[in-house]
Amino acid sequence: MAKDFPSRAENYAQWYNDLVIKADLAENSAVRGCMVIKPYGYAIWEKIQAVLDKKFKDTGHSNAYFPIFIPKSFFSKEASHVEGFAKECAVVTHYRLKSSPDGKGVVIDEDAKLEEELIVRPTSETIIWDTYKNWIKSYRDLPILINQWANVVRWEMRTRLFLRTTEFLWQEGHTAHATREEAVLEAETMLHVYADFAENWMAIPVLKGTKSPAERFAGAIDTYAIEAMMQDGKALQTGTSHFLGQNFAKAFDVKYLNKENQLDYVWATSWGVSTRLMGALIMSHSDDHGLVLPPKLAPIQVAIVPVFKNAEQLAQISEIVIPIKKSLEAKGITVKYDDRDTYKPGWKFTEYEFKGVPVRLTIGPRDIEQGTVEVARRDTLEKEVFQLTDIENKVVHLLDQIQKNLYDRAMSFREENTFRVDSYDEFKRILDDRGGFISAHWDGTAETEEKIKEETKATIRVIPLHNPGEKGICIYSGKPSEQRVIFARAY
Amino acid sequence: MAKDFPSRAENYAQWYNDLVIKADLAENSAVRGCMVIKPYGYAIWEKIQAVLDKKFKDTGHSNAYFPIFIPKSFFSKEASHVEGFAKECAVVTHYRLKSSPDGKGVVIDEDAKLEEELIVRPTSETIIWDTYKNWIKSYRDLPILINQWANVVRWEMRTRLFLRTTEFLWQEGHTAHATREEAVLEAETMLHVYADFAENWMAIPVLKGTKSPAERFAGAIDTYAIEAMMQDGKALQTGTSHFLGQNFAKAFDVKYLNKENQLDYVWATSWGVSTRLMGALIMSHSDDHGLVLPPKLAPIQVAIVPVFKNAEQLAQISEIVIPIKKSLEAKGITVKYDDRDTYKPGWKFTEYEFKGVPVRLTIGPRDIEQGTVEVARRDTLEKEVFQLTDIENKVVHLLDQIQKNLYDRAMSFREENTFRVDSYDEFKRILDDRGGFISAHWDGTAETEEKIKEETKATIRVIPLHNPGEKGICIYSGKPSEQRVIFARAY
Repeated sequence: MAKDFPSRAENYAQWYNDLVIKADLAENSAVRGCMVIKPYGYAIWEKIQAVLDKKFKDTGHSNAYFPIFIPKSFFSKEASHVEGFAKECAVVTHYRLKSSPDGKGVVIDEDAKLEEELIVRPTSETIIWDTYKNWIKSYRDLPILINQWANVVRWEMRTRLFLRTTEFLWQEGHTAHATREEAVLEAETMLHVYADFAENWMAIPVLKGTKSPAERFAGAIDTYAIEAMMQDGKALQTGTSHFLGQNFAKAFDVKYLNKENQLDYVWATSWGVSTRLMGALIMSHSDDHGLVLPPKLAPIQVAIVPVFKNAEQLAQISEIVIPIKKSLEAKGITVKYDDRDTYKPGWKFTEYEFKGVPVRLTIGPRDIEQGTVEVARRDTLEKEVFQLTDIENKVVHLLDQIQKNLYDRAMSFREENTFRVDSYDEFKRILDDRGGFISAHWDGTAETEEKIKEETKATIRVIPLHNPGEKGICIYSGKPSEQRVIFARAY
Repeated sequence: MAKDFPSRAENYAQWYNDLVIKADLAENSAVRGCMVIKPYGYAIWEKIQAVLDKKFKDTGHSNAYFPIFIPKSFFSKEASHVEGFAKECAVVTHYRLKSSPDGKGVVIDEDAKLEEELIVRPTSETIIWDTYKNWIKSYRDLPILINQWANVVRWEMRTRLFLRTTEFLWQEGHTAHATREEAVLEAETMLHVYADFAENWMAIPVLKGTKSPAERFAGAIDTYAIEAMMQDGKALQTGTSHFLGQNFAKAFDVKYLNKENQLDYVWATSWGVSTRLMGALIMSHSDDHGLVLPPKLAPIQVAIVPVFKNAEQLAQISEIVIPIKKSLEAKGITVKYDDRDTYKPGWKFTEYEFKGVPVRLTIGPRDIEQGTVEVARRDTLEKEVFQLTDIENKVVHLLDQIQKNLYDRAMSFREENTFRVDSYDEFKRILDDRGGFISAHWDGTAETEEKIKEETKATIRVIPLHNPGEKGICIYSGKPSEQRVIFARAY
């Protein structure tokens, strides 16, 4: 095996952690729970950002930036929000240090205590709605469609690289609307934007739906979410979009004059995805040989490795390779021609395989003679010898195929691991044996949901959008149920 | 005048502040010293980021991300660094809040006190060099060429939008090298990257040079800077690049095995520009009518305003305008066709003028008949009627002209306000009468520099790169001097 780390079957959690570190994606820092995102990992995040940013702009949004600090009192203004967010957070209490009396290092200057503590934002609804209050007077000022790319901090006790870290990077959209209908439409639109991104760029099929009241964002009337299935059968929430009703407008007294010249509270949404997406990307496609990346998000899409014994051979190979590289780059493909003589071809093969580069071309003296090239694809690990003629279009086609194959593979996996279940015994047996998504009847009460969670660690991931009504009996309580919902154990 | 605000002559500081707010660039937030960057201001910052990011990548750098928090003790490891940075900063002392006993709001949970306080990064050398320690073993791991786009916090007592805020956005490059020469070359290379950006994108001429020891970055061996002249004659530092020697390597014990198989400390640089550039951009070009933006950084480069009395006229105009818009967009130009009927043309003229849109096209029924269009340029406020034939290329040419004109105008202003001075009386008189850059002899001592600063508020902005040696007499002390340096009052 490429690098010394456990297989997925041996220890899935360790496989994930080792992969993240050994593939140079991220590592833990000296600050508890905060990660360092390394250049290779950050390059993937930049691709994610670029695609999403364009989608946000194409749907009419602009970027802006709001303060990292939020006055403590702001959190108390929205009752459920404070419960959800103001508890586990980083609190700034002082604004100055001074030399310590013993001359060793620095200590807090007690004279520089803040009158009101500042919270490092865990999410920005409160500071943003405090700002919107000054921006909105009449219906002419609406809608406001703003997104922010930022870092946020939630004090997590148990952290895992990308999946749950004290500081993480994300985007948070915050919109203001004149009507309830428009705000609901916005929340749904952004859910579809996220789903489109997950499926067509990340190659991850997702379920779209709403959350049960217990799983809603603190302060939301309705939370929409997309849920993906990881290779261990657990669910990972890969994006949420919230219809906030008039909750934040009421908390921050944001009213507008409508067309009928009457004052009314403004309607709100918020929506976000974070560096957690990196965790979903890694866990969806990677294998025991290392990372597997969908071509559309791979920082290097094609690696070209020359096999040569001397400078003369390398020169001959480069003469063939450089025009191919240029021609691929002209088609928008990122190519790395690794002509270093400090590493052997075998080392390079392992490296690009481990780092999830979708396509590797290998070309040696015999290929030059025969006009051929060896093409290795990362998803299936297959190798094939291609004629060099029209190699650029063949590579483009192969990248498309790999993108599609990763999606299809993930979709098949999800289908194989989604179960319709009608008894609680079967529910528990499947969870323990295989995991996966379980479609089951639920009586609609928070009590039942809580009991199931306590007993099995499974939660309701989504109530699917456009869920067909189906009369049935709750697997837990035996009470009547109006529909099936999707349960799973989750990250 | 467009919007109610003072002229530059009346009150330059107020003009600046009002302009920033009324042009929707930024505003103060509920958190003391922290600003909200509004969509129009942020759109300019995104353009700045995109150009710089490409330049960094073209010079071999990658982006990464390091934690926002830095353990307090890290600052004490580099003696001068702690003096410069660890004093006025945001200190996180607790990680949890709880409901207050009176049930109103939340209070700090004293059980959740951190063992060691965390500082919200004022700059990231310490946390990054703590990380590099684990990345660098041998010369093969060098150089490391990393940049980070991030928010930083420095607790400022007197703040001004963009120019000096408690939280600001910036990029910080942090590189590690095997040799002193390579690190010095890196610091100089990045200075030239910044200067190229300032001059060719921001249309701001800059002086390149090194800082006097007193003005160096805390922890640097040498600080390179670019300095621009604002319209009030004051200097504004628009970028710095630091040669850090082995200071941080020694503080964090970062050694590498060189080619001779010997352990040596690693050499370092760091370099950064911030949202302060927005202040420089605004103050360099804008006038009493509002913002003036160089075309290369304007979010809207061309605004097209139709003059119409009814839907039929608008339809006729749109038939002409839409192909022009598309053709300009195909040339990479950002065009806004403002066909709203809720605002009058006059209101739109004022709006685009105030927001600094470089070119405005106005087209009415008479233009349709005559095949003409009115073209207004923001820099000179001139209007001219053009034939519609080949209008796209005329507009492209005009945008180039405006970009060049803004630079030339700023350069002329700087030249008119740069003085060679040989006596302290003249030095003080010019500073009080006109401001500007003063080239004067300095004896090279920190004492003289400090005295001049105390008495006149002028500081040494730069010792110009490739400064010609010139024997002379220090204007303050009368002692021998080896060269002239550039003094100014500064932001």
